[in-house]
Amino acid sequence: MRTVLLIGVGAGDPDYVTVQAVKALNRVDVFFVIEKGAEKDDLIELRRRILSDHVPGGGYRVVEARDPERERVGLDGVAYRATIEQWHEDRTDIYERLVGGLGDGEVGAFLVWGDPALYDGTMRILDRVTARGSVAFETEVIPGVSAISALTAGHRIPLNRIGEPIHITTGRRLGAALVDGALPEGFDNIVVMLDGDLTFTKLSEPDVTIYWGAYLGTADEILVAGPVLKVAGEIESVRAEARARKGWIMDTYLLRRG
Amino acid sequence: MRTVLLIGVGAGDPDYVTVQAVKALNRVDVFFVIEKGAEKDDLIELRRRILSDHVPGGGYRVVEARDPERERVGLDGVAYRATIEQWHEDRTDIYERLVGGLGDGEVGAFLVWGDPALYDGTMRILDRVTARGSVAFETEVIPGVSAISALTAGHRIPLNRIGEPIHITTGRRLGAALVDGALPEGFDNIVVMLDGDLTFTKLSEPDVTIYWGAYLGTADEILVAGPVLKVAGEIESVRAEARARKGWIMDTYLLRRG
Repeated sequence: MRTVLLIGVGAGDPDYVTVQAVKALNRVDVFFVIEKGAEKDDLIELRRRILSDHVPGGGYRVVEARDPERERVGLDGVAYRATIEQWHEDRTDIYERLVGGLGDGEVGAFLVWGDPALYDGTMRILDRVTARGSVAFETEVIPGVSAISALTAGHRIPLNRIGEPIHITTGRRLGAALVDGALPEGFDNIVVMLDGDLTFTKLSEPDVTIYWGAYLGTADEILVAGPVLKVAGEIESVRAEARARKGWIMDTYLLRRG
Repeated sequence: MRTVLLIGVGAGDPDYVTVQAVKALNRVDVFFVIEKGAEKDDLIELRRRILSDHVPGGGYRVVEARDPERERVGLDGVAYRATIEQWHEDRTDIYERLVGGLGDGEVGAFLVWGDPALYDGTMRILDRVTARGSVAFETEVIPGVSAISALTAGHRIPLNRIGEPIHITTGRRLGAALVDGALPEGFDNIVVMLDGDLTFTKLSEPDVTIYWGAYLGTADEILVAGPVLKVAGEIESVRAEARARKGWIMDTYLLRRG
């Protein structure tokens, strides 16, 4: 039997790695690395550092594969879903090959930023590989510190006020849910992930506070907080400058009403 | 200046502790322990184990305080909020005394299960202490692996399907939001925490799957998943049995529609 570990290594800070993850890292024969293009060099370096810090003896292999391309702009609704579906199918081919390359009894692993359950596709792709039935393996998931926890820790805030619900969504979804620039009724704590469109700039409702963070947990971490109508422009320019300087950005934010 | 660390130690498994948390634990002069009654002996033991594993040299003090009582049943709306408010005020008195007991330059710490931002009151109480202005201190927050991440890792599932929003709420809120036993429209992934009332048993909507877990990440972990209409009774009896046997329970679950 082969085993595939999905190891959440936390949202940026190499010290977010858990003791459980360190033990898991040391069981691994083969680390699978999916290359996503030159812009992510910092993340490759961060991953190298996690391995050299926590598996100093080495003794593992690294197998790399290139992430398939996908159309990212100018699509919505059905076309968007179809593109995503094809992209996942292409990735399934790749992951099937990677897992199939494990010897009997070997342990492979994917390192996942943040927590493997939160807006990361690896688990779904492994489920697709399993569904194809061509290669037998077991999956174990090692939870990690999510970008949301890193964001709230950086700002030193709770996610919600007492007893209030929390909503986690994408920039795309938030944009569709805004009502004349206001947050929908009853959505008083909204965490927004994957928002390349800076949907917070479309808000016109007063009395909403934004807690924004980029490169969370890393030496490059940037935090901005304040009334969204007051600081949206600042975040926009800080974000553009950082992205131009580093070549990539990963950011997330919390919107809180009242 | 005094420093107070709010250290997320993860949701049950001592191995959920991060490298960052281990480093933080080793900076601490005084650990503040809030006693919540005999039923939590397992958790006290778990905390002892985290300290003995990761601060083997000792050299710290432990200062204990008793959590004030609060009325937990038979209240709703305004009365509920007033009770919670008074309880927080009482806790603020206690925390103010604890933090005020730190010597100049000393580091105190509260260990928090899971992640300090998620349904934990410690940060809010420290903010109240700060607002009183009677004792000067800085707060640092160390994020942790949340019960939500432990739940999804245990079940080996993502929190949502592609691009879908996620809702996190309490049993009380979910109960109020149910429409004739159905989940509200557009809420397809709901994480429910703090649900002593087993609100999932009030669901009559077919095609909803529940992923339930108790004592997550510990040797006593229990996981049950399946169509909610089929497994609700099983969860209810498993939960009652475990609670009677151990004297306490901490559980959480995800409801997924479709």
